[in-house]
Amino acid sequence: MQLFETRAELRAFLKEVRQRQQTVGLVPTMGALHEGHLSLMRTAAAENDNVVATIFVNPTQFGPNEDFSKYPRSLEEDARLAAAAGVTALFHPPLEEIYHTGNATWVEVVGGLTENLCGRTRPGHFRGVTTVVSRLFNIVQPDRAYFGQKDAQQVQVLKRMTEDLCFDIQIRVLPIIRESDGLALSSRNAYLSVDERQAALVLSRSLEQARHLIEAGERDTKTIVETVTAFIQQEPLAVIDYVELVHPDDLRPRERLEKAGLLALAVRIGQTRLIDNAMLEVATCS
Amino acid sequence: MQLFETRAELRAFLKEVRQRQQTVGLVPTMGALHEGHLSLMRTAAAENDNVVATIFVNPTQFGPNEDFSKYPRSLEEDARLAAAAGVTALFHPPLEEIYHTGNATWVEVVGGLTENLCGRTRPGHFRGVTTVVSRLFNIVQPDRAYFGQKDAQQVQVLKRMTEDLCFDIQIRVLPIIRESDGLALSSRNAYLSVDERQAALVLSRSLEQARHLIEAGERDTKTIVETVTAFIQQEPLAVIDYVELVHPDDLRPRERLEKAGLLALAVRIGQTRLIDNAMLEVATCS
Repeated sequence: MQLFETRAELRAFLKEVRQRQQTVGLVPTMGALHEGHLSLMRTAAAENDNVVATIFVNPTQFGPNEDFSKYPRSLEEDARLAAAAGVTALFHPPLEEIYHTGNATWVEVVGGLTENLCGRTRPGHFRGVTTVVSRLFNIVQPDRAYFGQKDAQQVQVLKRMTEDLCFDIQIRVLPIIRESDGLALSSRNAYLSVDERQAALVLSRSLEQARHLIEAGERDTKTIVETVTAFIQQEPLAVIDYVELVHPDDLRPRERLEKAGLLALAVRIGQTRLIDNAMLEVATCS
Repeated sequence: MQLFETRAELRAFLKEVRQRQQTVGLVPTMGALHEGHLSLMRTAAAENDNVVATIFVNPTQFGPNEDFSKYPRSLEEDARLAAAAGVTALFHPPLEEIYHTGNATWVEVVGGLTENLCGRTRPGHFRGVTTVVSRLFNIVQPDRAYFGQKDAQQVQVLKRMTEDLCFDIQIRVLPIIRESDGLALSSRNAYLSVDERQAALVLSRSLEQARHLIEAGERDTKTIVETVTAFIQQEPLAVIDYVELVHPDDLRPRERLEKAGLLALAVRIGQTRLIDNAMLEVATCS
């Protein structure tokens, strides 16, 4: 695996790759790699001749009171893990390689996709995500780009951006990776104390509650959301940011669950904001 | 020259071009081609193995009361002219190839570059320009893209976008092409009556006035702008949209002219809004 810090060096590497008619998979990350990221890298390695992983803690997707400065950074360990997962080029640019002086260009998906869920409580977050990912797409020009379903809304926003801006890139979405007790992997789990780590199980367990409800025949989304909300509120360390059950494509709420719905949560455990989600599918008679 | 109406067909053509390791120049236009466009195409043909020209009257860069619906369209004649100018692929997409249903993504340069000059009187115009050009860049992925200095502000905005979004594309800017009497070529000149055509000379002549002032030693930008304004106001058919003398890089006004300034005009002649500009350079002692 080669490590690159500048666009020029990475582009020289990619030019040779292209001349050999080889394919490129891109895995954009903010580092602090865990098994979720590594599953993306391993799949990218299986599906492409080369895997470019990026490690860049993107300031424009953090709000003014969010955790940009304390976000975990662990380049050496990340490099070791990425190499073992099949990454061939690790791109770790300094800030000015992505946002130089005088930078003034934003890429933004407007409307329903960015208004609900995290869009409500993290204004500007998705504008930061689309702005940085469009740059990474232009730098790497991959054949495929890999994202985790853990960030379900981000996935829908990036699919929309990719289609709208005519990027010739296939977006691949891989399942949430969980600890054995159900906690969805996140770099932010490192912030949790022992008690908070235990309390954080309320997220995945509340999603299980919703699954049971649907198996029992419940289709009214208000009832499902209220039940999940009440379940989470039983946990004293948890403060709900949102619980929403939306259509998986447009991320807008529906009164009744038809074929499938995305149940998405954001919950603060102490100072740490965690997200999780489940695709709730309604079994149909065959 | 081949004519393409879909992205898929154009991409298949470009894939073969790339496999032959050939270069591609892009000339984005809204059609109604004149000598200004053709000079871009000829230069692109001299500098690249292939030239893709696009003809797409982009609705998102027109305001609600502007001339989108009556903008001149002349595909057959355009195709003949483009082929003669060395274009190898003409891309003439229907609306839905660029803006499909559900489209929600904008690319925007914010700040000074888009606030002055046309940004003041055509809100949203440059957001439409950057949004469509970023799509064309992604579809064609050219080595070089060609624009005319006639649209001086557009050129600065697109250079900024290209640098900020890390497009690996060289922006080439070519001089304004004028009729023998000085009128800058524009597809909108076709709207002018005989009297208006004569009145429209006030734009280029006022730029000449400014040049004379600077040769005579004038450096105060307010005086230069006021003199140009008074000159244009002598023409009964002319209504000034703006006269501004700005720094050529950041497009912000300065009190005094230092090395160079961009004098930019927008003037309505009857119902037709025309623009013109001149780079005013101060001779320095050697």
